[in-house]
Amino acid sequence: MSIDAGYDNENIFAQIIAGAVPSVKVWETGDILVFMDAFPQSNGHCLVIHKTARATNILDIDDGALSALAVAVKKTAAAVNKGLRPDGIRVVQFNGAPAGQSVFHLHFHVIPIYDGVSLGRHGDGGPAPADALEAHAARIRGAL
Amino acid sequence: MSIDAGYDNENIFAQIIAGAVPSVKVWETGDILVFMDAFPQSNGHCLVIHKTARATNILDIDDGALSALAVAVKKTAAAVNKGLRPDGIRVVQFNGAPAGQSVFHLHFHVIPIYDGVSLGRHGDGGPAPADALEAHAARIRGAL
Repeated sequence: MSIDAGYDNENIFAQIIAGAVPSVKVWETGDILVFMDAFPQSNGHCLVIHKTARATNILDIDDGALSALAVAVKKTAAAVNKGLRPDGIRVVQFNGAPAGQSVFHLHFHVIPIYDGVSLGRHGDGGPAPADALEAHAARIRGAL
Repeated sequence: MSIDAGYDNENIFAQIIAGAVPSVKVWETGDILVFMDAFPQSNGHCLVIHKTARATNILDIDDGALSALAVAVKKTAAAVNKGLRPDGIRVVQFNGAPAGQSVFHLHFHVIPIYDGVSLGRHGDGGPAPADALEAHAARIRGAL
């Protein structure tokens, strides 16, 4: 999908926001939802999205919603750092399929990095077991 | 360097902000500086930093400065998109050396992705020629 494509109301994250598709939630507010990536690249890989700003990518979100997302990314990264004690954290945001975007609702990845552990490719091996996602989410929640 | 390391006033980006080290600037305000990565992973690879918030990474920046950075990343991505017409754009931010951080002043990478062109490894082959950096910066500036 082009970097300048419009918003698709049926995308999977819109369905998660609507409650039509389940997710393992970490924390949420009226505007923000943080949940576990079902295809994690490492243990504790979270996604941060805006629930009401229907933006495809960073190019079509208003400044206020983007600022709220950035602060939510920081809050999530701090809880990942405290709860999982990784050696590093990557924050990644893809715009357009050629950049690696696969769901066209703006999202930020918060990916813990552990010394000596290579990142998995997104989606390799299928979705992670729900109990593993929940165990990591619980540790992150406990550090909020 | 640890993810929780303190700020080093002598880091290379602090020296760029101070004007002690040259850079190819794209745009700046009193608080924000956007300049070309001297070791670009693709043509048009920019860095977005805060000039007055002396933060090592996303964990130790205040919400207002982080919001200003996020809005600056969006503005830069839009200009990269318009000026260079890449097929995608990656926004990346590393926290801690194991995550890929090499300069310990918080920065966001804005990396254009072009179909059929693999990203270079950061730093492979040494710094890019200044005239090439300037040519890309000029196209991005012209699209601001």
